[in-house]
Amino acid sequence: MIKSALQIAREKYIPKVPAALKGSVKIVEGEKTQSVADQAEIEKMFPHTYGLPVLSFETSDEKKDYPAIKVGVILSGGQAPGGHNVISGLFDGIKRLNSNSQLYGFLGGPSGLTDNVYKELTSDIIDCYRNTGGFDIIGSGRTKLEEEWQFEKALENCKKLGIKALVIIGGDDSNTNAAVLAEYFMAKGAGIQVVGVPKTIDGDLKTEMIETSFGFDTACKVYSELIGNIQRDANSAKKYYHFIKLMGRSASHIALECALQTQPNVTIISEEVAAKNMTLDDVVNQIVDVVVKRAEKGENFGTVLIPEGLVEFIPAMKTLIGELNDLLAKFESEVNNLESNKERREFVAGKLSKESAEVFTQLPNSFANQLLLDRDPHGNVQVSMIETEKLLIDMVKAKVKALKKEGKFKGKFKAQAHFFGYEGRCAAPSNFDADYTYSLGNAAAILIAEGKTGYMASVRNLTAPADEWLAGGVPITSMMNLERRHGVMKPVIQKALVNLDGAPFKKFAENRDDWALNTQYIYPGPIQYFGPSEVCDLPTKTLALER
Amino acid sequence: MIKSALQIAREKYIPKVPAALKGSVKIVEGEKTQSVADQAEIEKMFPHTYGLPVLSFETSDEKKDYPAIKVGVILSGGQAPGGHNVISGLFDGIKRLNSNSQLYGFLGGPSGLTDNVYKELTSDIIDCYRNTGGFDIIGSGRTKLEEEWQFEKALENCKKLGIKALVIIGGDDSNTNAAVLAEYFMAKGAGIQVVGVPKTIDGDLKTEMIETSFGFDTACKVYSELIGNIQRDANSAKKYYHFIKLMGRSASHIALECALQTQPNVTIISEEVAAKNMTLDDVVNQIVDVVVKRAEKGENFGTVLIPEGLVEFIPAMKTLIGELNDLLAKFESEVNNLESNKERREFVAGKLSKESAEVFTQLPNSFANQLLLDRDPHGNVQVSMIETEKLLIDMVKAKVKALKKEGKFKGKFKAQAHFFGYEGRCAAPSNFDADYTYSLGNAAAILIAEGKTGYMASVRNLTAPADEWLAGGVPITSMMNLERRHGVMKPVIQKALVNLDGAPFKKFAENRDDWALNTQYIYPGPIQYFGPSEVCDLPTKTLALER
Repeated sequence: MIKSALQIAREKYIPKVPAALKGSVKIVEGEKTQSVADQAEIEKMFPHTYGLPVLSFETSDEKKDYPAIKVGVILSGGQAPGGHNVISGLFDGIKRLNSNSQLYGFLGGPSGLTDNVYKELTSDIIDCYRNTGGFDIIGSGRTKLEEEWQFEKALENCKKLGIKALVIIGGDDSNTNAAVLAEYFMAKGAGIQVVGVPKTIDGDLKTEMIETSFGFDTACKVYSELIGNIQRDANSAKKYYHFIKLMGRSASHIALECALQTQPNVTIISEEVAAKNMTLDDVVNQIVDVVVKRAEKGENFGTVLIPEGLVEFIPAMKTLIGELNDLLAKFESEVNNLESNKERREFVAGKLSKESAEVFTQLPNSFANQLLLDRDPHGNVQVSMIETEKLLIDMVKAKVKALKKEGKFKGKFKAQAHFFGYEGRCAAPSNFDADYTYSLGNAAAILIAEGKTGYMASVRNLTAPADEWLAGGVPITSMMNLERRHGVMKPVIQKALVNLDGAPFKKFAENRDDWALNTQYIYPGPIQYFGPSEVCDLPTKTLALER
Repeated sequence: MIKSALQIAREKYIPKVPAALKGSVKIVEGEKTQSVADQAEIEKMFPHTYGLPVLSFETSDEKKDYPAIKVGVILSGGQAPGGHNVISGLFDGIKRLNSNSQLYGFLGGPSGLTDNVYKELTSDIIDCYRNTGGFDIIGSGRTKLEEEWQFEKALENCKKLGIKALVIIGGDDSNTNAAVLAEYFMAKGAGIQVVGVPKTIDGDLKTEMIETSFGFDTACKVYSELIGNIQRDANSAKKYYHFIKLMGRSASHIALECALQTQPNVTIISEEVAAKNMTLDDVVNQIVDVVVKRAEKGENFGTVLIPEGLVEFIPAMKTLIGELNDLLAKFESEVNNLESNKERREFVAGKLSKESAEVFTQLPNSFANQLLLDRDPHGNVQVSMIETEKLLIDMVKAKVKALKKEGKFKGKFKAQAHFFGYEGRCAAPSNFDADYTYSLGNAAAILIAEGKTGYMASVRNLTAPADEWLAGGVPITSMMNLERRHGVMKPVIQKALVNLDGAPFKKFAENRDDWALNTQYIYPGPIQYFGPSEVCDLPTKTLALER
C-alpha cells in the first residue's frame, strides 16, 4: 500500500479511550433486561441468552490472568468509517489480556466464516490500518447468517481453527443474526461466544445504551463538508438550486444531521412525510413554496437535501411500487414485448388500482419509465436506483413553469443534482469515530475475555470527553421486537427512525422557516485531525442534542 | 453569517508571503516581452501596452510614500478557492502603502462595473472572509467586458467613484479582456490602470511566469479526497466500477492531477484522445480492456476518471456536434414536431454526413436523445449537460455483455456514476492557495501603487517555501496569440492544455498500466490546515513535476 502523507501522519494517532479501559477492568452487572416488545415470544426464541443484565466496566485494582484465546472477526454489510479501528482495538485488547491470544479475520464478510476463508491478523497488518477508513483489511460482504446450515458451517470452521469467540461488526440485521448465532452456539454447548459491534453510517442502530452507531459521525461530516462547499458556491454564483440526495434508505438521520450542520434551505425528512401522509405532490409543493418565496426576495438559488429512502416513505408511492412489483412479475413478457415506453406506461396504468394509476400517470414520463425498466432479478422495482433528486427537480421545474404562466412566479429556476454516499462510507474516521471504534474494540475484547455472549459492545456518555465515556455490554435480545419479514414474524432489532418528538428534529423544525428564506448557510469544511479540540473532537449535533 | 468552528479557527491564519512582500519593495524591470505568437498583429492591437517588461519585486531599504487611492475589484467567472484572500491581500496591500486608500468591490462580476453596483470593502467586511472559500463577498458573474459601450460605462463609473485602478480576478478570457480594457484606458488617457489576477480551478491559465492559477490546488485536493474515499470503498466492497467525471471542459489538468494524487485504474486525458485521433469506441475499448484484465485477476471493481470536456476532444464527436448544431437550427420546427425520439433520431441521421451519421447511430439511444433535446437558447447542443460518465458506463456494459457471450469475459461489471465540480470550487483554500492568493493580492497592490497597467500579478517559484517565492508582474499581452472566435481573429491568452511531453503526463503514462491492473490506490484524505507541514503545505503534483 502506498500511503498518503495524511495516512502516515495519522498512523501515529493514539485513540482516546474511557478511563475504565486503561487498566484492569471489573465488570458490574446491572438489572436483568427485557426485550423492548414481544417479551414472551422473544424469550421463547432465546432461552439461553434472553434477560441477561446490562454490563458496565469499572476500573479495578485486581490484575486478572486470562488464558490465550483465538478470536475471529467479521465485517458485515456496508462500509463505515472506523471499522479498522474496531479491529485494532480488539487486537490490542485481547493482546493486552494475554499476549499469546490471536485474532483471525474472516474475509469478504459473513461468507468468509461459512466458506472458511480467513487470515490471521498480526501486528504488521494491524499497524497498516490504524485510524484508516475502509473495510479493506479483510473486506466485507452482505451474506446474511440466518440458516441452520450456515450456523453449522460456522461451528465447524470455528472448531477447526480453535476459535473461542466471534466478533461481528455490523448493522441491525447483522447484530440480530449475531444474537441468533450466539443462542445457537449456547444451545449446542459449543462454547463459542458471539459479540456484536454497532456499525452503520445511517445512524438507525440506536438505543438508550447504544447512543450512536459508528461511522455516522464521519460520514455526516464528509457530506456536510460537501454540502457546505456547494452552498458557498450557490451563494456565490446565485444561479442554481442544488438538490442533494444523501445515502441512508431506511431512516433520515443523515439528512437531519447534515441539515443541522449546514442549514440548507429545504430538508425533506422521510419520517415526517410518512407521519403527515404526504403525497409526492405535497413534497414538491413544499419545495416550490420555498423557491417562490426566495424568488420574491431576489434569491434564485438554494439547497435541498433529500434522504435516499424518501420514495418508500411516501405512502401513495409505497403502494404504487408494491402494485408495480406484483404487476411486472405477472405480466413480464407482455410488458417487455411492447415497443415503446409510452405503450408500456399505458398498459401498466390500465392494470393498477385507481389510486395508484392516478399517482403513476402524474409522474414525469422519464421517472415512470424508470419504475418500469430498472428491476432487480426478482422483477422488483429497484428503489435505490430511483433518481429522486432528478425526479424532484423535474417536478419543481414543471410547477414553477406553470406558476410563471399564471404570473405567480417571476424568478428563475435552474437546478443541479448530486448524490453523496460512497464519498463518506470509507472516509478516514474523525477523531470521534477513531476513538469510539477503538474503544468498542477494546470493550469487545473484555466481553470475550469475561466469557460473555449475545452482547453488543457499548460505549456511552459520548458527548463527554473520552476519558469519561462508559464502556460495557448490552444484551442484544434487549433491543429486539417481532416484525413481519417476508410474511413471517421474526425477532429483529428495532430500527431507530428519526423521532419527530426528539430534540434534533425539533431543533430543525423550529429553524427551518428561517433557513428556507434567509440564507443562513454554515460551511463546516473538511474533517480536521490535528487542530484545536473544538474543531477536531466535536460529536454530531444529533448526539449533542439527544444527550 | 454563522461561522463553523473551523471557519472561526481559520480566521486567525496569517498567510505566508514571499520575503520581498514583507517590507518596502523595489521594482526590477526585466527584458521587454513579445507575445507568444502573432507579434506584429498583437502589437498593432495593443500600441500602448505591448512589449512591456516583466517586473520582479525585490526587498528595498528605501521607504516610499504613496498617495491614497481608490481601487476597484471584480471577481469574474467560475468560483475558485482563494478569491477572498486575493481581495484581503489586495486590501491589506493598499492599506499598508497608504492607510487612507480604499477598496471597492463591484458586485456580481463585471456587470457590477458597467451597472455601477458596488460596495466599499472595509476591514469589518474583509475580516469576515479571510481564508474562506467562495466568491460571496461581492459575488461573481460571467458577463464579458468586450464591447466599447462597456468600456465607456466602466470609464464613466470609475471616474464617478474616483477609482484609479481596477483589479480583475479571472481566467484566460477575463484577463484577455482586462488587457483590452487597460489598452482602451491608456488610449483614452483615462489614467485608470487595470491589473489581472490568474484564477481558475481548471489549471489551464499557465505560462513560464504564471506557474499555476489559483484554486487548482484546493479543488484538486477536494476531488482527490473524494476519489480516494470512493477507491477505498471500491477496494472494500469489491463490487463496483466508479466512473468519476471531473469538472474542467477545456483541459484535463484536474483529471491528471487527481490521477497523480490517487492512482485510479483508468484516467482518460482528453488531450491524448485528440492527439491520437481516438473515437468514442476507442475510449470505451481502453476501459473495457482494463475491466477484462482485472476480471481475469478476480478484481471486478475499479475507478475511472473522466474529464468533463472529453466529448469535445473526440474528433468525430466534435464534428458530429458541429453538424447537429447546424441541423437543429435549420430544422428546429420539423424536429420538434416529430412524435417520438426514435423518429427524431432517424430524421436527423438522414441529414448528417455519412461519417457523422455512423457515429450518431452507434450511440446509445438515451445519449443520442440527449444530444437532440438538451439545447441552449441558441439551439446548440449543451455539451456540459452530456452525462459522459453514464454514456461510458452504458457503452462499457454493452461491450462487456457481448464479450461474455463470446466467452471472453467471465467477470462482473456493475458501475456507479459521479460528477465532481461544485464540491471543490468554493472549498476553503488550502494553505497553499491561501498563501498564494494573499500574495497575489499583495502583488497587485504594488503593481497599482507603481502605476502599472496591463499586467497580471505573478508569484513564482511556488514549490519552494513561501518565503522564497518570487513576486512581480507579467504583461498580459506577452501571453497572447490570435485565435479564431466566432469567425473573427481575436487576441487571446493561449490556453494551456495538458502537454503530452510534460513531466506530469509522462509520470502518469509511465505508471498507468501498473495502476490499471495492480490496485495501487492512494487515499489522500481531506485537506488539513493545522497538522505537520508535509501534510498541510504540499503543492500539487503537477506543480512539483513541472518545476
